[in-house]
Amino acid sequence: MPKQVDHDQRRREIADAVARLAGKRGLAAVTFREVAAEAGISVALVQHYFGSKQNLLLRTVDIVSVRMAERFAARIGALGSRAGNVDRIRAIAESFLPTDEESRQMMVLYHAVGAVGLTDPDMRGDGAHHNHAALIRVMVELLDAGRAAGEIDDSVDVVAEARLFTAAITGLSAAVLLDALSADQAIDAIDAHLRRLSPAGSR
Amino acid sequence: MPKQVDHDQRRREIADAVARLAGKRGLAAVTFREVAAEAGISVALVQHYFGSKQNLLLRTVDIVSVRMAERFAARIGALGSRAGNVDRIRAIAESFLPTDEESRQMMVLYHAVGAVGLTDPDMRGDGAHHNHAALIRVMVELLDAGRAAGEIDDSVDVVAEARLFTAAITGLSAAVLLDALSADQAIDAIDAHLRRLSPAGSR
Repeated sequence: MPKQVDHDQRRREIADAVARLAGKRGLAAVTFREVAAEAGISVALVQHYFGSKQNLLLRTVDIVSVRMAERFAARIGALGSRAGNVDRIRAIAESFLPTDEESRQMMVLYHAVGAVGLTDPDMRGDGAHHNHAALIRVMVELLDAGRAAGEIDDSVDVVAEARLFTAAITGLSAAVLLDALSADQAIDAIDAHLRRLSPAGSR
Repeated sequence: MPKQVDHDQRRREIADAVARLAGKRGLAAVTFREVAAEAGISVALVQHYFGSKQNLLLRTVDIVSVRMAERFAARIGALGSRAGNVDRIRAIAESFLPTDEESRQMMVLYHAVGAVGLTDPDMRGDGAHHNHAALIRVMVELLDAGRAAGEIDDSVDVVAEARLFTAAITGLSAAVLLDALSADQAIDAIDAHLRRLSPAGSR
């Protein structure tokens, strides 16, 4: 179905244009007119694919989330098949930090849409809330596997840890974006935390 | 100087009006006209005290930060003089969670202004960045004192832990505001994390 593929490709191009605009100038700059100009297509086509501005932002967050998942899948892949669960957790955590222009744009969009969702429940949708819950589930799986493999201490409360660590990742990402911390300082904080989860004897 | 006191009082009233508006309808609703109506004063008076919208938001975040500091000072005071450093850390962490209408409004404003700062460096000022750094310093002091008092394990890297925990607090606060977690789930995550900092023998 080549036609279907073209539509998905077009949606991704528009989402990229939204992420670039939001990353440079904030959500206030994301209008149909600006997005169309950034993507090099007509306003009518943007509206055809996304309907309303709310839908445009929510679908863009979904598309960007898929791209972020691809980023951390690539990082995990690069670790090789012998990588441990804690290595995988670290790779995911680091992929949330704005270490290059693409990740910076993606994280600005993630946080900015999340902030709009604070006062507008319609702007949560499949966005920040859903992604946060999905990330917690991934962390629970990896922490469970890490405990089973003896990488993580039996005393670790996996669900509580997954919730705290997911919050810490998003908080560190925002702190780096706001220049409150450097990416290296955030990585050090993540590493120090993960070391404390290892079995007592191996610390 | 009773006149000075009146000015401070007036600024706090205007800041309260900004926080109520932002908490209900987001930063987009914070206009001079709306703030004046919410505070029951003239637009000219709001402009007299705060000049620009940027200044209004940044000064409001400062005033709200002072109020948040008062909130956690009150919580720490309520613990009594025999409270440990970890109890104080927990009290500060919990005061960041939106557990009542006042704290919900304050945290919405904190996160929303932080989100604007992501793409507008002028909107960081003494706001989110400064507050984040100040909170990290408070955490470093309490963690150091906790280590000295034997409440916290010697192996804990105090600076790295302060950075991670501060990020976790702000991330948990956002997750509760977005209904991704309940306040009780966030408190459980904080407690589980703090338990892991205690000396190995006493866990």
